[in-house]
Amino acid sequence: MSRVVTFGELLLRLSPPSHLRLTQARSFDLYYGCAEANVAASLSKFGLSVKFITAVPPNELGESSLSMLRSFGVEPISFIQGKRLGIYYFEQGASERPGKVVYDREDSSFSTLKKGMINWEDAFKDSDWFHWSGITPSLTLELAEICEEALTVASRMGLTISADLNYRPTLWKYGKNANEIMPNLVKHCDLLLGGIDDSEKVLGIKVNEKDTQEEIFSNWMNAFPKLKNIVTTKRMDANASSNGISASFWNGKELLHSQKYNISHIIDRIGAGDAFMAGIIYGMIAWPDDNQTALEFAAAATCLKHSISGDINLATVNEIKALMGGSGGGRVSR
Amino acid sequence: MSRVVTFGELLLRLSPPSHLRLTQARSFDLYYGCAEANVAASLSKFGLSVKFITAVPPNELGESSLSMLRSFGVEPISFIQGKRLGIYYFEQGASERPGKVVYDREDSSFSTLKKGMINWEDAFKDSDWFHWSGITPSLTLELAEICEEALTVASRMGLTISADLNYRPTLWKYGKNANEIMPNLVKHCDLLLGGIDDSEKVLGIKVNEKDTQEEIFSNWMNAFPKLKNIVTTKRMDANASSNGISASFWNGKELLHSQKYNISHIIDRIGAGDAFMAGIIYGMIAWPDDNQTALEFAAAATCLKHSISGDINLATVNEIKALMGGSGGGRVSR
Amino acid sequence: MSRVVTFGELLLRLSPPSHLRLTQARSFDLYYGCAEANVAASLSKFGLSVKFITAVPPNELGESSLSMLRSFGVEPISFIQGKRLGIYYFEQGASERPGKVVYDREDSSFSTLKKGMINWEDAFKDSDWFHWSGITPSLTLELAEICEEALTVASRMGLTISADLNYRPTLWKYGKNANEIMPNLVKHCDLLLGGIDDSEKVLGIKVNEKDTQEEIFSNWMNAFPKLKNIVTTKRMDANASSNGISASFWNGKELLHSQKYNISHIIDRIGAGDAFMAGIIYGMIAWPDDNQTALEFAAAATCLKHSISGDINLATVNEIKALMGGSGGGRVSR
Amino acid sequence: MSRVVTFGELLLRLSPPSHLRLTQARSFDLYYGCAEANVAASLSKFGLSVKFITAVPPNELGESSLSMLRSFGVEPISFIQGKRLGIYYFEQGASERPGKVVYDREDSSFSTLKKGMINWEDAFKDSDWFHWSGITPSLTLELAEICEEALTVASRMGLTISADLNYRPTLWKYGKNANEIMPNLVKHCDLLLGGIDDSEKVLGIKVNEKDTQEEIFSNWMNAFPKLKNIVTTKRMDANASSNGISASFWNGKELLHSQKYNISHIIDRIGAGDAFMAGIIYGMIAWPDDNQTALEFAAAATCLKHSISGDINLATVNEIKALMGGSGGGRVSR
Amino acid sequence: MSRVVTFGELLLRLSPPSHLRLTQARSFDLYYGCAEANVAASLSKFGLSVKFITAVPPNELGESSLSMLRSFGVEPISFIQGKRLGIYYFEQGASERPGKVVYDREDSSFSTLKKGMINWEDAFKDSDWFHWSGITPSLTLELAEICEEALTVASRMGLTISADLNYRPTLWKYGKNANEIMPNLVKHCDLLLGGIDDSEKVLGIKVNEKDTQEEIFSNWMNAFPKLKNIVTTKRMDANASSNGISASFWNGKELLHSQKYNISHIIDRIGAGDAFMAGIIYGMIAWPDDNQTALEFAAAATCLKHSISGDINLATVNEIKALMGGSGGGRVSR
Amino acid sequence: MSRVVTFGELLLRLSPPSHLRLTQARSFDLYYGCAEANVAASLSKFGLSVKFITAVPPNELGESSLSMLRSFGVEPISFIQGKRLGIYYFEQGASERPGKVVYDREDSSFSTLKKGMINWEDAFKDSDWFHWSGITPSLTLELAEICEEALTVASRMGLTISADLNYRPTLWKYGKNANEIMPNLVKHCDLLLGGIDDSEKVLGIKVNEKDTQEEIFSNWMNAFPKLKNIVTTKRMDANASSNGISASFWNGKELLHSQKYNISHIIDRIGAGDAFMAGIIYGMIAWPDDNQTALEFAAAATCLKHSISGDINLATVNEIKALMGGSGGGRVSR
Repeated sequence: MSRVVTFGELLLRLSPPSHLRLTQARSFDLYYGCAEANVAASLSKFGLSVKFITAVPPNELGESSLSMLRSFGVEPISFIQGKRLGIYYFEQGASERPGKVVYDREDSSFSTLKKGMINWEDAFKDSDWFHWSGITPSLTLELAEICEEALTVASRMGLTISADLNYRPTLWKYGKNANEIMPNLVKHCDLLLGGIDDSEKVLGIKVNEKDTQEEIFSNWMNAFPKLKNIVTTKRMDANASSNGISASFWNGKELLHSQKYNISHIIDRIGAGDAFMAGIIYGMIAWPDDNQTALEFAAAATCLKHSISGDINLATVNEIKALMGGSGGGRVSR
Repeated sequence: MSRVVTFGELLLRLSPPSHLRLTQARSFDLYYGCAEANVAASLSKFGLSVKFITAVPPNELGESSLSMLRSFGVEPISFIQGKRLGIYYFEQGASERPGKVVYDREDSSFSTLKKGMINWEDAFKDSDWFHWSGITPSLTLELAEICEEALTVASRMGLTISADLNYRPTLWKYGKNANEIMPNLVKHCDLLLGGIDDSEKVLGIKVNEKDTQEEIFSNWMNAFPKLKNIVTTKRMDANASSNGISASFWNGKELLHSQKYNISHIIDRIGAGDAFMAGIIYGMIAWPDDNQTALEFAAAATCLKHSISGDINLATVNEIKALMGGSGGGRVSR
Repeated sequence: MSRVVTFGELLLRLSPPSHLRLTQARSFDLYYGCAEANVAASLSKFGLSVKFITAVPPNELGESSLSMLRSFGVEPISFIQGKRLGIYYFEQGASERPGKVVYDREDSSFSTLKKGMINWEDAFKDSDWFHWSGITPSLTLELAEICEEALTVASRMGLTISADLNYRPTLWKYGKNANEIMPNLVKHCDLLLGGIDDSEKVLGIKVNEKDTQEEIFSNWMNAFPKLKNIVTTKRMDANASSNGISASFWNGKELLHSQKYNISHIIDRIGAGDAFMAGIIYGMIAWPDDNQTALEFAAAATCLKHSISGDINLATVNEIKALMGGSGGGRVSR
Repeated sequence: MSRVVTFGELLLRLSPPSHLRLTQARSFDLYYGCAEANVAASLSKFGLSVKFITAVPPNELGESSLSMLRSFGVEPISFIQGKRLGIYYFEQGASERPGKVVYDREDSSFSTLKKGMINWEDAFKDSDWFHWSGITPSLTLELAEICEEALTVASRMGLTISADLNYRPTLWKYGKNANEIMPNLVKHCDLLLGGIDDSEKVLGIKVNEKDTQEEIFSNWMNAFPKLKNIVTTKRMDANASSNGISASFWNGKELLHSQKYNISHIIDRIGAGDAFMAGIIYGMIAWPDDNQTALEFAAAATCLKHSISGDINLATVNEIKALMGGSGGGRVSR
Repeated sequence: MSRVVTFGELLLRLSPPSHLRLTQARSFDLYYGCAEANVAASLSKFGLSVKFITAVPPNELGESSLSMLRSFGVEPISFIQGKRLGIYYFEQGASERPGKVVYDREDSSFSTLKKGMINWEDAFKDSDWFHWSGITPSLTLELAEICEEALTVASRMGLTISADLNYRPTLWKYGKNANEIMPNLVKHCDLLLGGIDDSEKVLGIKVNEKDTQEEIFSNWMNAFPKLKNIVTTKRMDANASSNGISASFWNGKELLHSQKYNISHIIDRIGAGDAFMAGIIYGMIAWPDDNQTALEFAAAATCLKHSISGDINLATVNEIKALMGGSGGGRVSR
Repeated sequence: MSRVVTFGELLLRLSPPSHLRLTQARSFDLYYGCAEANVAASLSKFGLSVKFITAVPPNELGESSLSMLRSFGVEPISFIQGKRLGIYYFEQGASERPGKVVYDREDSSFSTLKKGMINWEDAFKDSDWFHWSGITPSLTLELAEICEEALTVASRMGLTISADLNYRPTLWKYGKNANEIMPNLVKHCDLLLGGIDDSEKVLGIKVNEKDTQEEIFSNWMNAFPKLKNIVTTKRMDANASSNGISASFWNGKELLHSQKYNISHIIDRIGAGDAFMAGIIYGMIAWPDDNQTALEFAAAATCLKHSISGDINLATVNEIKALMGGSGGGRVSR
């Protein structure tokens, strides 16, 4: 069983029930999640052994967020400090009305982490894989530097390193652009989840209008020699309630494409990218020599996430394999 | 900021949750609304200053209905009299099962209003626009006559007057047909929302089989010389859960058409017409010389209403403009 | 008014609300139902007089299950014995994620019924029709033998007999295959609901690859000379949230086809087959000489069931006729 | 098994959940009930055979109200006519805040009943007992006259007749005082539930300040020679959440007193009197020669009702006997 | 009709339903409130004209908080600025488990207010009364200084000024003790709500062990010559679910005492002090020469608040007067 | 940090919300728990390291029950086998209506455990304490024998052993009386929770009418020489909504008594004994030389449990100590 470590900021998600708008809400449904914890929980559900490193406040919200992780079998390693758990309010979209996120995550416990606090050698001991995302370095310069600490140690200790670029322009507010920070971190990675829109803004790599996807990803690999694989997802014919989805895998030689799924009735799209990320990590561990199968697993994983409430993909390995094998015909499983 | 006055009967809406049928309900979700109040609340949300004239009973239901209006910034001017607030039970449809309304609105406080009670000069002071609908004159002869009082004063004071014909055959029960009453009221209007089916039944204007929409609306304008603009909406490919929608605008010279929206997942279709009406009123105030933009605004407004629970369109001007500009692709707004 | 008798095992259904997965549930919505009771309740709602024979435990769950039947006007004739009411946990599917049933029905009160306990002469007195399904004989050998008791008496007393083959491989666990038991029961039937997949596994009748549906059903009629009519349903373009549906009727001479319905937004698919079964029973009683109308009624009935929560079709005769007449256009009925 | 007939107006009760006030409600919990139906349902739960005569509108609310009765095993005999089901909004009280009822029951289907419509001979055939309450004659003069019809026939056919005086001053609005109508009806009764406050206002029998309860009830029996027994209940140390309760039974010779119950945590006090009434009817049938036991049964029944949500007492005979035997010590029954 | 102005920070309250603990919550009920807005809303419900001055963020939470105030008829005057609405998580207590508040209110929009921003002359125009509480100056030094601005203007313009000392030690975190700040603000007040525990910690006035309540309050009046009346409340025999409550009024001459209420079943104790404050303000306006009646009104108001969910007292003047007159006996009001 | 092992059968608890009766339920709230898991979770919340040994079925219910344990930090060691998770339906009582448990736990996965399956040496490695209850040996003879296996190993390995006698007569159905089985198991124990009623029925030790509690407990110690301490709890003045509670501790020399708590408003009494058991285990570890403090801790723990929904005591060490120190006065903790 592989051992994976992830690192990030757990958030409290507050959502009105039943497609109500935020201004109509008399109650909020409550979930905990974040890009990296969503990956952690999904991998744990797939059967891997997973640690999640974070910081939460010494109050009931902090305790509950860790309790949620434990319920999925993830082992949280958390600093209990600071004053508050970050929040995001999420309004489900419907049809032509897009979903909406209102962040209230500043001054969180996670943002009180300091360089040198985390013993990365301990954290990575006996582990094979480290996963992080572009959210963390977007929050504060100190957190970006902590990422660098972690990546340096993980590289040295020989872990496989993956990242989801996860570019959210509204989060980068401390005076640096993403492309001033991220290249220095991405250079440690073996596997990236990103899209061609990220090339300039996140990686600082120019894109010419005529560049094919293969050429762009080749340029990334040239810029970051350690990088071995790049994965990317694509939505089609989308509104807030339905879309198609497919994914691609660039292994430096060929661009593999997954089958396309038509998701006609979306229950919850939050965490779809994280479901894909967990799928591809699992896939590459399970089928190290079969990128196509790994990709299909990840694509089916993200497809199923759209049918599941909350931030975390609760689909099992068997369910994902069944969808890869054509179970999506609506027949009730008895 | 324009000042708008509307007039109508607030109803209590009782709906089973989660697509349950009326006979399955163990609880009802509770909304307040009516054609004219829905327009009022939407216009207030758009930033206009709006008064709503009505009558409610001296009990908690009456109080709550006015409180709801105040929460949207509408100023209610209400007689507190009579014995009951009208009710409608609403069962959401789904797929091939149509939605269903069961009215229980007779003998309401609103129907105890008498001619001479309302000081229309006061009500319209400092206002620019008066909006009413065909629901009110359908309820009692006295209410039809009160509409005439209001329209006479509004005309004299120079307000722009709009009406939604809103023809509901089951409501006209006091011995008059709609087309015996409505023409005398419609003659005061500058703007009408109606469809070609209303021509004979509501306006008493014959339609020949070969008449185009342009010809029919021309006939209306000939019959009602004060009338300057006619708007109409059209549903396509409809079942209870999805339909297309588009709208048209006849300004006496040309028939403008809005873009068509495909509403694949309807949350609540009640009030879609009122959302359109509020949209066109706002649009004509905001873009007095640009009928096409006004129409597109109204069409996008009604499209968004289908994604919102309850009778009232909670979409903002910015959200509607975003949809006009192509925001409907399902991407979460962060 | 025709009098119908059905016989089967009432189950408690426990489902998470709002498309949550079973592992996410903090509460379960609670329904009672089973193939035969669903038919009974639907027929009672259509205006027939219906008895349902069963056994439930002497506790609150048993009492509630009978109370549910009574609320629909069905007269339950129940043994109050044994220790537990069978349960099935049902997770609603969505889009590409199929629904899921987890059975916990062994050792139920119903499975403690013994031959000779039920006075079938009394049960069938003054009745015209007996309906059963393949669920009951799948549970225990004793129950299969009780079915034979019932069918023998019903045949002798001249009731019309219908069966839904309802083949669930996971239920046949007592050492007999379905096709060792069912033919002996099916031979009493006038009307069958089944599909060509059932031919070998349930009826023990070989199917050649080139056989048409007409030929297969002819073979059934040859094998079971009492059998007069066979009905079957077909899903198309299906996922867990939407599918098309149509049905066919073989009367020994021609294979009639219903119109096809496109069910774009499924609320609850459990009981869709039972809704069809009740529809065809009602149809054959209401239009004894018009198989096409009976079939259309049944097809419209199952279509509407997909829009209704719970196991039981709450659609009325008028609503079903309206859909046959084209009411599915989404217009709210006022 | 005794057969009981009751007669009255079913109402829809709408209550905010969780002790919310009416003006705070975003949803209403939904119950159906009325004084006489509550008695009917409780008696049916005690094992008697019960008919309930009423009128409801031809819509989903009417259907649901009858369905509720059927679920308790009561046989409803209902005219399906008129336009609406009467409503009462009920706000649960708490501590020093009293509960509140807002009636909206005028112009109901029940109030469209006319003399001569109901075939009382048929209704009472094979029955032993007729129960009515003072609510029905308070609603319209016609309904008072229908009560007289019923009572005349029931007397003639030899049924035992009971009444709950149930005096609600706000309901008597058609121009007659209760004491102009009720004596003519009460004269048919064998058993009355009432209190000394009812003497003048309902029965027109003066009370002198020094009269004991025994003397007052004796005067009632003198005024109504057919009257054999009078029962009455008493609340003590009351607020909206807790009170003591006891009851008395005057059999013309002695005034028996029940034990006193201290109800420290009231869940729902609506229907407490009806629970008592059903208790005393059952008690007098079960223990015809033991008034004390009948009284204790009724007192324990009303005590348990306070712990049960909704209008209807769901306590069983065994549970009531257990409380009479001292089960109220809080020990969980396993 | 008197015109009252209040000033403070609106908070979002998030509470688990049904007495669940914070760590058990899967959903939060949502209320908006704060000491000063609770007073404002209650006074508006009593019929006064009320303005509330605050600052909220430009997002859906800010909009909803103002919408709530409008629904009560309060006119909010709000700066729309800053980044977040303050939050408090509230866990209802039960029996021996005390309720619990977890604050997350730092860096709120309200705390971005600056001196000079608010035009107090405009705010107080045509108003008679200004009410504030000790919460505001506890938050930041700037807010304490804004309070002083407001009080200076209100004094100059001749408004009656009231304050609730509302001492929360955990809020005073900016380096000043309450008694370094509050005396300079309290000196402007005509009416104070406080208790003897506040004397040293809030007002800096020493208390000797033998001092009577009268002597302590006399010392306060000596220290603050403008102060005319002091009110105080007292809980007795308390746990989280029940307590007694009474109040006293010191008018400089005598210490009046209200009747004592026994609140046996508390629904929600948050805002009980604010309900008292609104009661005493209303009482002193309604009965300027009858301190005892004003006090009884305020005591009955706070008693009723304990029976009402949320932060705001929804009791009406009539309900409060009824309780003063003895309505608390639990009889349902029909 | 002490390490504790417990062993037992996890059950699914299904309860109607809001004090509804089982027959009224349209939904069930869902908890997982059992005597031994409740102790485990509470001890984990107190900071001990806890393992729980059990067996659950290979389905979603089994998975969820383990997930719940993990969320509290308990490490489940579970066999995944058998067919079903045991269920108990629980109806909350209120006032004079007692709570009610309906068991449906036969043929569960736990009851498929066999001797020799569990490696007790591994389970107890590095652990200090083993806790079991009388529920397990009541279920099947095999489980009684597995208990003996466990106790023999635990004794040999030197763990402290505690048991809750937990006598439920309705569970002992396999042909042995409790007192034929339990003495052989109790003889391994260091600490017992039981009452004098258990003496004959569970331990087979006669009680003479004049025996004091001290004498009875002395007799127990004589019969079981390894036994060092006996604890017992006592309810007073009880109904389903309120009771007093106190506890006693017999250490062989003196009978210590805890303070008495008056629990006026019970939220959920299930698990109150388990909360006490966890309290006394923690207490004896934390204060090994201070039996009185250990007892007070346990008494305060069980008191707080009554205010918490579900089977598990969520009170923290600090909250329990606060109650011991007098925090129960109802003041909100901020």
